[in-house]
Amino acid sequence: MVLPTNPSAQLALDLVGVFVFALSGGLVGVKKRFDLFGVLVLACAAALGGGVLRDLLIGAIPPVGISDWRLLTAAGLGGLVTFLFHPGVARITRFVRVLDAVGLAAFAVAGSLKAVTTPGVTPVTAVIVGVLTAVGGGVIRDLLAGQVPEVLRRELYAVPAMLGAIVVVTFAQFGTVGDLALWSAAALVFAVRMVAVHLD
Amino acid sequence: MVLPTNPSAQLALDLVGVFVFALSGGLVGVKKRFDLFGVLVLACAAALGGGVLRDLLIGAIPPVGISDWRLLTAAGLGGLVTFLFHPGVARITRFVRVLDAVGLAAFAVAGSLKAVTTPGVTPVTAVIVGVLTAVGGGVIRDLLAGQVPEVLRRELYAVPAMLGAIVVVTFAQFGTVGDLALWSAAALVFAVRMVAVHLD
Amino acid sequence: MVLPTNPSAQLALDLVGVFVFALSGGLVGVKKRFDLFGVLVLACAAALGGGVLRDLLIGAIPPVGISDWRLLTAAGLGGLVTFLFHPGVARITRFVRVLDAVGLAAFAVAGSLKAVTTPGVTPVTAVIVGVLTAVGGGVIRDLLAGQVPEVLRRELYAVPAMLGAIVVVTFAQFGTVGDLALWSAAALVFAVRMVAVHLD
Repeated sequence: MVLPTNPSAQLALDLVGVFVFALSGGLVGVKKRFDLFGVLVLACAAALGGGVLRDLLIGAIPPVGISDWRLLTAAGLGGLVTFLFHPGVARITRFVRVLDAVGLAAFAVAGSLKAVTTPGVTPVTAVIVGVLTAVGGGVIRDLLAGQVPEVLRRELYAVPAMLGAIVVVTFAQFGTVGDLALWSAAALVFAVRMVAVHLD
Repeated sequence: MVLPTNPSAQLALDLVGVFVFALSGGLVGVKKRFDLFGVLVLACAAALGGGVLRDLLIGAIPPVGISDWRLLTAAGLGGLVTFLFHPGVARITRFVRVLDAVGLAAFAVAGSLKAVTTPGVTPVTAVIVGVLTAVGGGVIRDLLAGQVPEVLRRELYAVPAMLGAIVVVTFAQFGTVGDLALWSAAALVFAVRMVAVHLD
Repeated sequence: MVLPTNPSAQLALDLVGVFVFALSGGLVGVKKRFDLFGVLVLACAAALGGGVLRDLLIGAIPPVGISDWRLLTAAGLGGLVTFLFHPGVARITRFVRVLDAVGLAAFAVAGSLKAVTTPGVTPVTAVIVGVLTAVGGGVIRDLLAGQVPEVLRRELYAVPAMLGAIVVVTFAQFGTVGDLALWSAAALVFAVRMVAVHLD
């Protein structure tokens, strides 16, 4: 069964995810002492990588991450903001974690929502695509910056994303994924991830 | 000319390749002292990466690596088995090589078989797709784990895969790729690779 | 509006880009003391990676980088030439920069040209695809070789590629992208990049 898509919620979630992952990618670039351009590239790769991967996997060509000017603007803006206003480097690592959690939440929901409303994509695949959307940008960011990807180092990184994706896909099975369900799923991912960060 | 596909052999080869590459990916994770989740992620990336790359290159969307529950189960199981029962770390490196050779063999054959039976894919492309299927998972595993990919360090890593893919594609040109031909091609890849490991 | 494609210019640009990126990839392999096979793999990855990424993003399946024998031959030849005739390692770093600039120019133009003549691809997307085609092979080369990608370390690496892509896409908006326009755009990219290398 294919749901009617929910374009405005999809866009809002994509925008939130793109912007915060651009901040997180930019901060990693600042920490590694890249110049403005390196920071922008890392911001865009982190921000857009997960969504591009998602769209390649479900055959949405060309991927929105390279075709929707709003997402491109959000990614560039996030990188620029980071470069201009980043706080002291000492506080960056902690802040990257929080931004990562927000991005993880937005992208887990956005990725599974887009996948589950694509013809030919099964519920299990939609969950996996949701997780890959959520973790993909961070993996690309970490590979480019030469550090071991976060997803390999922390138990509770992909698990909250998977929970959120399962919630979205389960709602979709019953035919209704309203805005409340989507934002609740995102809040769940964020909360579980932040508890994990706190306990770490 | 497009062959009738051979779904059961395709699935069997994919399953063997996925399971052993999951073990090899998991063992690299154990060696790097990742926790359970990191081991599972590395196992799944190594196990499913090559097949996902293959399916992206030949337009088989969504890739079976994220849609066939049997492959997903084999990948997860391989990672779990590794984490629970891995032998002493001292012996791991050697064992990874043997598993790698089995996976290389299964995926070179599975990759070229699937490609050569896809409309619009030429024999040369099918050979290349076979090689990329075989080496792709290992490359992704090594990049994620922060080590130089095996395929760059060893002369006779991609060459056996290419031999096997050429055998499969040559048989396909004559219209018959029976189970015997497939498993013989896989045995050839494994044998050549193990001789190379032994001589190394 | 979709232009008539310009297959001979497209092929010539692709061939130039593939050959020089094969040399640059091979030289990085020589510098890292890989053996013949490692050098060939790195050469092919650097040479064909950007074009394969482009074709995945615009849905040109299977990618020409794994299906056109002329590109495959150029990539292999570039790797072989590098391995056999590479100059003293001391001079390699400088030479890689020049080759990189030629490849950047050819691929920025080839990538944006192919994208802008693909139905459903907007001008902005065509520019981004041009840049990704130009920088993609180098990023893959650097990740495989275990070094931080050039595109993150140098301000004026992606910018010249973007200029060239914008020129091509702008001409395409007016319906005419003749050979003169294409080679002028490539010369512009090369010149800006070489000035940047010189000032560095």
